Amino acid sequence: MPLGQRPGDKSESRYCGIETEFHDDMPQLLTYSLSGGFDFVVAPLVDPSYRPSIRNNNGGATILPVSASDLVLNPSQWSSHVVGKISSWIDLDSDNEEVRLDSEITLKQEIAWASHLSLQACILPAPRRGSCGNYARCVNQILQGNNMQLWLRVPLEKSEIVDGSTDADCDLTGGRMLDSWECWNTFRLLCEHHSQLGVALDILSSLPCNNSVWRWFGEPVRAAIVHTNSFLTNARGYPCLSKRHQKLITGFFNHSVQIVISGSLLHNIAGDSGDEVLPAIDDDSPIEALPARHELKPYLDYVAYLYQRLDPLPEQERFELGYRDFLQSPLQPLMDNLEAQTYETFEKDVVKYSQYQRAICKALINRVPDEQASTTITVLMVVGAGRGPLVRASLQSLCTSSNASDSCHDIFRHFFLPQASNSQLPVQLFLHPVKSSCCHHFRSGLLAYSSSTDSFNYICFMSRICKDVSKRGKLWHLASLRCFLCFCTLAAEETGRKLKVYAVEKNPNAVITLHSLVKLEGWEDAVTIISSDMRCWNAPEKADILVSELLGSFGDNELSPECLDGAQRFLKPDGISIPSSYTSFLQPVTATKLYNDVKSHKDLAHFETAYVVKLHRVARLAPTLPVFTFTHPEYSNKGNERYKRLRFEIPLDTGSAVVHGFAGYFDAILYNDVHLGIEPSTVTPNMFSWFPIFFPLREPLYVPRGSTIEVHFWRRSGATKVWYEWCVTSPSTSPIHNSNGRSYWVGL
Amino acid sequence: MPLGQRPGDKSESRYCGIETEFHDDMPQLLTYSLSGGFDFVVAPLVDPSYRPSIRNNNGGATILPVSASDLVLNPSQWSSHVVGKISSWIDLDSDNEEVRLDSEITLKQEIAWASHLSLQACILPAPRRGSCGNYARCVNQILQGNNMQLWLRVPLEKSEIVDGSTDADCDLTGGRMLDSWECWNTFRLLCEHHSQLGVALDILSSLPCNNSVWRWFGEPVRAAIVHTNSFLTNARGYPCLSKRHQKLITGFFNHSVQIVISGSLLHNIAGDSGDEVLPAIDDDSPIEALPARHELKPYLDYVAYLYQRLDPLPEQERFELGYRDFLQSPLQPLMDNLEAQTYETFEKDVVKYSQYQRAICKALINRVPDEQASTTITVLMVVGAGRGPLVRASLQSLCTSSNASDSCHDIFRHFFLPQASNSQLPVQLFLHPVKSSCCHHFRSGLLAYSSSTDSFNYICFMSRICKDVSKRGKLWHLASLRCFLCFCTLAAEETGRKLKVYAVEKNPNAVITLHSLVKLEGWEDAVTIISSDMRCWNAPEKADILVSELLGSFGDNELSPECLDGAQRFLKPDGISIPSSYTSFLQPVTATKLYNDVKSHKDLAHFETAYVVKLHRVARLAPTLPVFTFTHPEYSNKGNERYKRLRFEIPLDTGSAVVHGFAGYFDAILYNDVHLGIEPSTVTPNMFSWFPIFFPLREPLYVPRGSTIEVHFWRRSGATKVWYEWCVTSPSTSPIHNSNGRSYWVGL
Repeated sequence: MPLGQRPGDKSESRYCGIETEFHDDMPQLLTYSLSGGFDFVVAPLVDPSYRPSIRNNNGGATILPVSASDLVLNPSQWSSHVVGKISSWIDLDSDNEEVRLDSEITLKQEIAWASHLSLQACILPAPRRGSCGNYARCVNQILQGNNMQLWLRVPLEKSEIVDGSTDADCDLTGGRMLDSWECWNTFRLLCEHHSQLGVALDILSSLPCNNSVWRWFGEPVRAAIVHTNSFLTNARGYPCLSKRHQKLITGFFNHSVQIVISGSLLHNIAGDSGDEVLPAIDDDSPIEALPARHELKPYLDYVAYLYQRLDPLPEQERFELGYRDFLQSPLQPLMDNLEAQTYETFEKDVVKYSQYQRAICKALINRVPDEQASTTITVLMVVGAGRGPLVRASLQSLCTSSNASDSCHDIFRHFFLPQASNSQLPVQLFLHPVKSSCCHHFRSGLLAYSSSTDSFNYICFMSRICKDVSKRGKLWHLASLRCFLCFCTLAAEETGRKLKVYAVEKNPNAVITLHSLVKLEGWEDAVTIISSDMRCWNAPEKADILVSELLGSFGDNELSPECLDGAQRFLKPDGISIPSSYTSFLQPVTATKLYNDVKSHKDLAHFETAYVVKLHRVARLAPTLPVFTFTHPEYSNKGNERYKRLRFEIPLDTGSAVVHGFAGYFDAILYNDVHLGIEPSTVTPNMFSWFPIFFPLREPLYVPRGSTIEVHFWRRSGATKVWYEWCVTSPSTSPIHNSNGRSYWVGL
Repeated sequence: MPLGQRPGDKSESRYCGIETEFHDDMPQLLTYSLSGGFDFVVAPLVDPSYRPSIRNNNGGATILPVSASDLVLNPSQWSSHVVGKISSWIDLDSDNEEVRLDSEITLKQEIAWASHLSLQACILPAPRRGSCGNYARCVNQILQGNNMQLWLRVPLEKSEIVDGSTDADCDLTGGRMLDSWECWNTFRLLCEHHSQLGVALDILSSLPCNNSVWRWFGEPVRAAIVHTNSFLTNARGYPCLSKRHQKLITGFFNHSVQIVISGSLLHNIAGDSGDEVLPAIDDDSPIEALPARHELKPYLDYVAYLYQRLDPLPEQERFELGYRDFLQSPLQPLMDNLEAQTYETFEKDVVKYSQYQRAICKALINRVPDEQASTTITVLMVVGAGRGPLVRASLQSLCTSSNASDSCHDIFRHFFLPQASNSQLPVQLFLHPVKSSCCHHFRSGLLAYSSSTDSFNYICFMSRICKDVSKRGKLWHLASLRCFLCFCTLAAEETGRKLKVYAVEKNPNAVITLHSLVKLEGWEDAVTIISSDMRCWNAPEKADILVSELLGSFGDNELSPECLDGAQRFLKPDGISIPSSYTSFLQPVTATKLYNDVKSHKDLAHFETAYVVKLHRVARLAPTLPVFTFTHPEYSNKGNERYKRLRFEIPLDTGSAVVHGFAGYFDAILYNDVHLGIEPSTVTPNMFSWFPIFFPLREPLYVPRGSTIEVHFWRRSGATKVWYEWCVTSPSTSPIHNSNGRSYWVGL
């Protein structure tokens, strides 16, 4: 039974398991656990007193002392409700050869039995301190011929080293192994990052520092085993968790990690439930008989409470669920013509076009003083017009307030009334810079309203139908994106400027749409459509404002610099480019899932390619650093090749970590203070046009505690293509990736 | 003109070059240098005052200020006698962007010009301290589209760190880079170990410690640039080198490294040559005119003296020249049948069979007391008899002294007389344990003789025709291996024991040869030939002695353990196996050449395969450690799977190094104190049956100064095959190589 109903959450983390001792009546054990509300048991499959060598010496039966015949449960019960727990006595790196051989035989026998039962996963005992080479070799062998998940048990602990201690304290053998992450790292390196090898983290009563904990979110953590002794006791005697533990459990819920409760009842709960916990057995019942009510249910109840207390997934997150950690090749909009579906998706990004609209407004106002508004015609060229969204944004920046107020009423009715019937959903709207003159049209329908037109900050509205005031300020409801697009009209500036628009587009298919849009909207007088590549168009006049939306996830990666270099020929010397500049950003990440997906292609080229990806199971190891900046117009002769050396300092308390690659972002200044971007610390909220970009490393980079990561990035160009090269030179040196653009490039 | 005539030496190290300044009359420069005895010049190709940016600003000619038109020399002169020297001012990692861009343009232009001239190589200036990322990226780009060798100049220096200092002194940035090897390592890692990227070592007046120097012999060092200021002055005022420098230069000669003399005349040589050094020019001659006699000739003469002083290559080394660093797949004698050519080669290894003969002698004597010699028949089985060399060795161990003396005379005549005509060649023979009773037959022909029969030590004979007494004790002349085989007869023990021999061989082709051998030698009464696999033969009686030669380079790697396990069924309980035990050994090596050869296959399998290889351009980083030992007969039930963890301590004064894999050897105890092996510290001299084995690593392992290398080796077996797995867990962790024998195995 899942922990609760959380809208949109279909992840594994809804299920909670329980770790049990060896029990030879599996159906009874399972019934007891499931009826107690647990979804699965983590149970030993073989009597822990079994040793193959002793059995052989006895010359006795060769039957493995398993907990139950495979027939006592049906296959789907085995597979859905039982995770195998490998005997914890095994020690494949013992100095005692007999123990080592016994351990290997037992491990293989138990896994074979678990496979026979079609279990989905088995939990492997934690490696002992010191060497784990033979254990890893044996597990690696098992992984080659099996499709079961193996979860290596690892305690979530790290011996904290006092700041200021020298590296000598953190020596390579004993010292390094104090951090359980090191042990995991060695193990998975030996097993070559096998995709079926995961981690089951043991959560203890004390937690390491946050940086050290969060690096696990880039690792393949499948389960978190929470021990009853890590629970505190609340005023009523019930188990609860510390704030830090709560935050960690929430982190697990959000990263598809299942919770498993382990240990014995440590809270003697008074009152109503107290009696029930005692086993209701009579004297004749066998000792193994289990109590009617599961004694660990109070712990489960608390975990379920934490789960149910979670905020529902925001609409945008739900929409993007399917894209989480899914690698996509970046678009090549210059070389290829985009398809209608692609335009359709991107045109829906209201926030993005609203920002463009704001930038155009500001540029118009700055360029044409009020006194010249009626006499000056501003020439605005949209280069790469696509199907016209920027043309629309440009013209909407001119629309009058009366038009705006009319449409506002329509939109309000259209938007709010259907929502009113769904009283469960809080509705909160995120509106865009409006002039206060527009806003009075909405007062009747709005509960709260605030405005700060001077700073062009966002304004928040809470609708009357929002029932849950406690959620105020936290949620964005974007159910109807189409509707939201219309809301942009609300943001229209009454600039009153006169505009002449050229829409330049190289894709002949998009030009067809442009023509019908212009006809439909009655823009024939204002808009001239040019079917041409901006790099070779001979403009009949020069532009005051050049508007483009050529940015990729990494800023310049869709060749905006090259395109705008070609277009600035027809920009007036004092003309404005929107965007006026953009900067790419990078940060090192742990991303086991992404690494394994890249590796699955089994070639070099995929390790030297950048991917667009909605990052989810990722640990960000350091704040971003800026990489390349491009400014437009650019009249210097420096060209568009770039070289940047970056040094990321990993916080000392993170401990060691592994870097699978670099997450890339951009931030663009559209005009003056109007920016647009996906760089995490300055992200423009509620845009969905860009996921981050991911530059992989061919070999995961081990980063010892307290290291600096030195990275080199190049932007290079040739006659027909532009590409990036990258490498690491500290803490160790990688090859130069994508030399001469051999694997990944963007066509000119 | 080569440095001298050294028999057998066809390597590059015969040639010596000279580094020159920029000179705009290349033919004159070349004539001057070649007439001075140098074989090639290392010369700048472009005026060092050239800067592309300045030239562009001047708007002047775009012609590169090269030293000479391509027409002044013919293509083969350019290619044989000129190594390009890239302008030393370039700095691609300068903080100054203009310097960086100028440097990149210049580097590319100069390389392009050198390519146009068909030069074989260019020397790149040493990277500046600190970062070399952009330099390496640019060189890497050049390497992709060019087949010229690029030699990165690296000073042979290492800041010695006082023992006992903590690791904190050796920090990751500044400290590490004090060692010029680190700089080279970073550079070549960035360039992905490109096979055209080599090293030109600058030899200075002071040398780092030996361990630090020798690690370079596993690196692709192509040239050693010896500066005139590193020469000392001898009593007569001539340049000479310190003992350590001499040893180093000898090392270069032996590793195919060319010497280049650099710098100005620092020795004012008095007397006869003094006047000649002065330029014989009249006042009208241009300033550039060069002296008639090359002023650096005294340095060249000294280097030539060192070269000429070298010992000639021993015969065996010459024979094995073609095998140096050439990777061969190990034999699979069990799964495949060997070819006649293979038998032919191995049967010529006199030393090997002589050791077997000694072992059999000792076993016979120990097993049958003198008083029972005439009554007891010893049953000896040669398992894996091949074409009969061990059968011969077994029977020869019985031959009487009179027979031996007869053949001795024949052999002596056959062997010594032809040699006598070649008075140049010292002939030294390496004979095998003989009883003193045999030796008198040779006194007449031998100059020196000594014996120590008790300890069965080797006895050295110097023949009268050995002219060069100074070579005494150093050389082995093995011109006539066939003849040497007969010499084994000299070693015959008068054991007087009676022997019944079974020759068991699975290869039906070899059985044919065995039959004819037995007929030819008249051994029909003594020898029974069995055409069968020893693992399934039903022997009609049990053996006293089981003789086998199933050892591979790594001891057990040709499945001797499995074969002998199968054969010991028919060994008497107190019977003897020859060999009685064998142990494999490993040591970590730097071996760039081998790594690149493995990598050239572009697949995983070749990186998980062991190779038989005559190791030459290799740096051995630590003494060998024993791995697996097998003893025969083996009545315990432990099986033939093995696991061993090895820890190699790299001497602190080596500094950092890179490990490309592990060299493997074996040592076998044939019987009692008679051993046979290729482990370097105990090697049996003059055997050629085994080259070492090489286990590669998939990624070169960086080993920081003072590290311990922890390696795990497994010997694993399945139903149809035996294989090794290996991995490294310190200083960093590798994947497990050859998991489940997926890439490399030996068939059962």
